[in-house]
Amino acid sequence: MASLKFSNVYINDNWTITGPMESDSKLKKIDIKLDDYYFDEKTFEQAEIRMQKMAINSILARHKLSSKDIDLIVGGDLLNQIAASNYANNATNIPFVGIYSACATFPESLIIAGSFLKNDNVNKIIGITSCHNLTAEKQFRYPIEYGSPRTQTSTWTSTAAISVLLSKKKKNIKVESGTIGKIIDMGIKDTNNMGAIMAPAAAQTLYEHLSDLNRNVDYYDLILTGDLGCVGGEIFKEYCSKTYNIKIKKHLDAGCELYLKSQNVYAGGSGPSCLPLVLFNKILLQKKYKRILIIGTGSLHSPVMVNQKISIPAIAHAVSLEVL
Amino acid sequence: MASLKFSNVYINDNWTITGPMESDSKLKKIDIKLDDYYFDEKTFEQAEIRMQKMAINSILARHKLSSKDIDLIVGGDLLNQIAASNYANNATNIPFVGIYSACATFPESLIIAGSFLKNDNVNKIIGITSCHNLTAEKQFRYPIEYGSPRTQTSTWTSTAAISVLLSKKKKNIKVESGTIGKIIDMGIKDTNNMGAIMAPAAAQTLYEHLSDLNRNVDYYDLILTGDLGCVGGEIFKEYCSKTYNIKIKKHLDAGCELYLKSQNVYAGGSGPSCLPLVLFNKILLQKKYKRILIIGTGSLHSPVMVNQKISIPAIAHAVSLEVL
Repeated sequence: MASLKFSNVYINDNWTITGPMESDSKLKKIDIKLDDYYFDEKTFEQAEIRMQKMAINSILARHKLSSKDIDLIVGGDLLNQIAASNYANNATNIPFVGIYSACATFPESLIIAGSFLKNDNVNKIIGITSCHNLTAEKQFRYPIEYGSPRTQTSTWTSTAAISVLLSKKKKNIKVESGTIGKIIDMGIKDTNNMGAIMAPAAAQTLYEHLSDLNRNVDYYDLILTGDLGCVGGEIFKEYCSKTYNIKIKKHLDAGCELYLKSQNVYAGGSGPSCLPLVLFNKILLQKKYKRILIIGTGSLHSPVMVNQKISIPAIAHAVSLEVL
Repeated sequence: MASLKFSNVYINDNWTITGPMESDSKLKKIDIKLDDYYFDEKTFEQAEIRMQKMAINSILARHKLSSKDIDLIVGGDLLNQIAASNYANNATNIPFVGIYSACATFPESLIIAGSFLKNDNVNKIIGITSCHNLTAEKQFRYPIEYGSPRTQTSTWTSTAAISVLLSKKKKNIKVESGTIGKIIDMGIKDTNNMGAIMAPAAAQTLYEHLSDLNRNVDYYDLILTGDLGCVGGEIFKEYCSKTYNIKIKKHLDAGCELYLKSQNVYAGGSGPSCLPLVLFNKILLQKKYKRILIIGTGSLHSPVMVNQKISIPAIAHAVSLEVL
């Protein structure tokens, strides 16, 4: 039994800072929009660290909270050693739980936070994640300055840091249940086709979530996958139908919902920020959906293993949200 | 309030595989000892993956458990993208929670597992961690083949994978409480002096643990730090005394307890496996201590940030264990 129910876990607020591409995207409401990738720092990594720091400090400031009011921060990012999170959380004076599941980080952080909130003495947790196009591309593929051609299946790692404030206070969004996924590997080695790598993991987690909780997919008003992109999103729906006989009526993929067509990002957006970015700054603003299942999808891509010609495993974690 | 109490969490068993150096060390009981670093694989990374896989499968086999009997695996390692854990957990058919806190991974996994076990439908969790001298040195410093000189403050990343079986069944070792640490950075940039980087984090976590739970340090029969090494261990005790006025009577550091003097490892052993390796395969076999506080110490060392001349932050997580 992999799924957990939460009775008393709420996302009270979120705070977002984005890079230049996301500032011009389909998103509607962003707290701070950057117009360059450096954020007045000397390197892209230091820019990403500063973005995370600002996301943590700003959500604290908006709620007039100090570090003493927060029991834990749970978070991660795409950098080796989750460096953006570790350096951003340096000297916050708040206990930090570092996690890694690539672009499935956001729902993993919600599930871990939800479990911690079952303790009587834990009341407020901040969830944090970030990604930066130029730190991620350099690390996982090529520095963007090389001008390597991209394929039509490739997605664009978004640039953003997002914090959420979780507590037991019934406000805004209820975290109703969550499913931790299993790692699967379909034998794909193409680092420019993350959608195909992750789609079966997303389908498997959806299947397990529905089975565990004895629900039909129509229970949800929307299935929102994280960053399969427009190509992977189609594979996901077909895979759900053919392998698990799950016919999804209302599905959106955050990667496919992020950028404008004119932004030329091929298969869409990606990165651990992509899902919360689209969820909070687009989907929830529409006030159309009450029950949303978010499925964060992580390609567990390691350049070292890819260079050793090993295929890329993937994971997906799902969280059921109810808009209050 | 950072510390959590657990009423119903036990380490029922552990299973260990070690590399050549650890096989000849001060350790007493090891399930499988390797005499080379390749473990019949083509690369060191694939050897580390195979070691983790074996640690998971062997603890399952010893207890006649199948993947269906295990609710979760919680784990991580030192490789970028925690690749050893992600690849080892591929196709286990068990939900996987990936974490990263460098060499503080083992206590972080116990605290997260303990929180998950508060759910009625979660009964058995496997904690897993590994490290491999030759994958870690290559990634964090230099490939060992370069023959770079090492300093007297440097530690030797151990080679081992260790799994633990956690459940609500009262057997062997009780996980009594845990404290998630805060990240601190004392401005040190020397990647060959991890002990000094981590010692203040260990002291801070010890202080918070004792304050939160209103305990004197003498409550514990032993304070066992993870991999400060022989140099960092001394700094830790001095820092505890001078900064927090905590006078520790019984302290051992797993890094300092792992290797023989003749093995010439300078300041001792390190890596996320170091703490559980010494705990299970040496300290607990002596049957000398009943209440043990383990403090896993993580240098949140990122080569990218070190190359940008940024100092190295550290974290420490503590878990109180009671031998039944």
